[in-house]
Amino acid sequence: MKILITAGGTSEKIDSVRTITNTATGRLGSLIADAFLEDKANDVTCLCARNAVRPQNPRARILPVSDVRSLQKAVEQEMRLHSFDAVIHSMAVSDYTVKYSVPSESLAAQLAAFIHGTDMSPEYLAERIHYALLACGGNVGHGKISSDIEHLFLCLEKTPKIIGLFKKLQPKTVLVGFKLLSGVEESDLLRAAEGLMERNGCDFVLANDKKNIEGERHEAILLGRDHSLVRLGTKAEIAAAVRDRVTRKIEGDGKK
Amino acid sequence: MKILITAGGTSEKIDSVRTITNTATGRLGSLIADAFLEDKANDVTCLCARNAVRPQNPRARILPVSDVRSLQKAVEQEMRLHSFDAVIHSMAVSDYTVKYSVPSESLAAQLAAFIHGTDMSPEYLAERIHYALLACGGNVGHGKISSDIEHLFLCLEKTPKIIGLFKKLQPKTVLVGFKLLSGVEESDLLRAAEGLMERNGCDFVLANDKKNIEGERHEAILLGRDHSLVRLGTKAEIAAAVRDRVTRKIEGDGKK
Repeated sequence: MKILITAGGTSEKIDSVRTITNTATGRLGSLIADAFLEDKANDVTCLCARNAVRPQNPRARILPVSDVRSLQKAVEQEMRLHSFDAVIHSMAVSDYTVKYSVPSESLAAQLAAFIHGTDMSPEYLAERIHYALLACGGNVGHGKISSDIEHLFLCLEKTPKIIGLFKKLQPKTVLVGFKLLSGVEESDLLRAAEGLMERNGCDFVLANDKKNIEGERHEAILLGRDHSLVRLGTKAEIAAAVRDRVTRKIEGDGKK
Repeated sequence: MKILITAGGTSEKIDSVRTITNTATGRLGSLIADAFLEDKANDVTCLCARNAVRPQNPRARILPVSDVRSLQKAVEQEMRLHSFDAVIHSMAVSDYTVKYSVPSESLAAQLAAFIHGTDMSPEYLAERIHYALLACGGNVGHGKISSDIEHLFLCLEKTPKIIGLFKKLQPKTVLVGFKLLSGVEESDLLRAAEGLMERNGCDFVLANDKKNIEGERHEAILLGRDHSLVRLGTKAEIAAAVRDRVTRKIEGDGKK
């Protein structure tokens, strides 16, 4: 079987020395890679973020990625060159990239310059200010922002959803998505996981809550498209369950 | 000799899964630690950021830190307990911490609600908007920001300068500061380094430019308070030069 795994957390540049980073370690992704590689017939490609923990098995093929753009490029290239039986998308992908950074004084001055009318309704004014906020310029990624600014505003912009790419490029691949929330009710977590499954055609989604992850303990629920539900308690259990469910699904599909 | 070294880059929380991180690797700090530890009489304590490369020598005493606040606490505690002959402050400390995050629509609506008067001068309006921007609330560090917001604003606030602490707590320690800029003229880099030395009572400052650091190559200038100037080309050269200059300074001071 040919498996593609994404692992770790992407980073988006603020300037030449600062980034916004997802704190994922990539440890779960590396364990899943090692679990698949226990079977010598399996072939695993890992798209790993810069600081991600790497799989121990030397047969893992590692391709480093940094930001969302580089991840997207790597996914498109890999899926053009190879046909994957499954994709395990465990990477914490930045939801936001930095559009611009601007000192609070400049932002205020630019907004003030934008407000002329005196008889605008609060709603219309808010709409105009909204457009002005988005239009305020400023460089990103180049040079280093001065450290002498008292208050700095960063405008962040939503990134494209990478998880939507996999089934679009290879509709037959078995796709495992990951949903991580923080401090929510389990019913809300499951609803969010099912939403992710629906929107992206996932075959499985691993649902977990930050509050239930600490050291070796990693409570999670592996949801299947067939409404199956498995509760897991450690990263090792999760890795084995993902491998087993995905393998059975691929073999089952092959028999049809 | 008793040496305190800070290494790596601090991270400030945006929410429970995202941080603003300085991309420093801590490799230079770890090499300086190892250089000092070649002499068995030396005793080295390292305040290391989460992802920082650790010294190879097992005699290094490692204390992990995360954000600016935890760094400050660790420095104050260590300097209360121990007297250091020298402090090598190579850590890239976050200049900004996150004050709040707010969706662009909410920010615009809050600003619009704040603007009542119709006869304000642009300067007065800018001043009022500035205060309104700083007052816009929003939680930081707790929960996870939704990934469905189209545009998100982060308000960042300057952090206290840690480098100012060392000589305040131990005026006799030999202090080495680091100045990293990106893509500037050498004369501007040297001026910035001298400013850092003046403001914080550094005995030496290592001045370097991001554009001259790549792989093994690491061009830097070690400036002394006595206007000495040494050019260095690799991390290994820098580590040896810092150790040698600091050691001579401590021994020289002892003889006086």
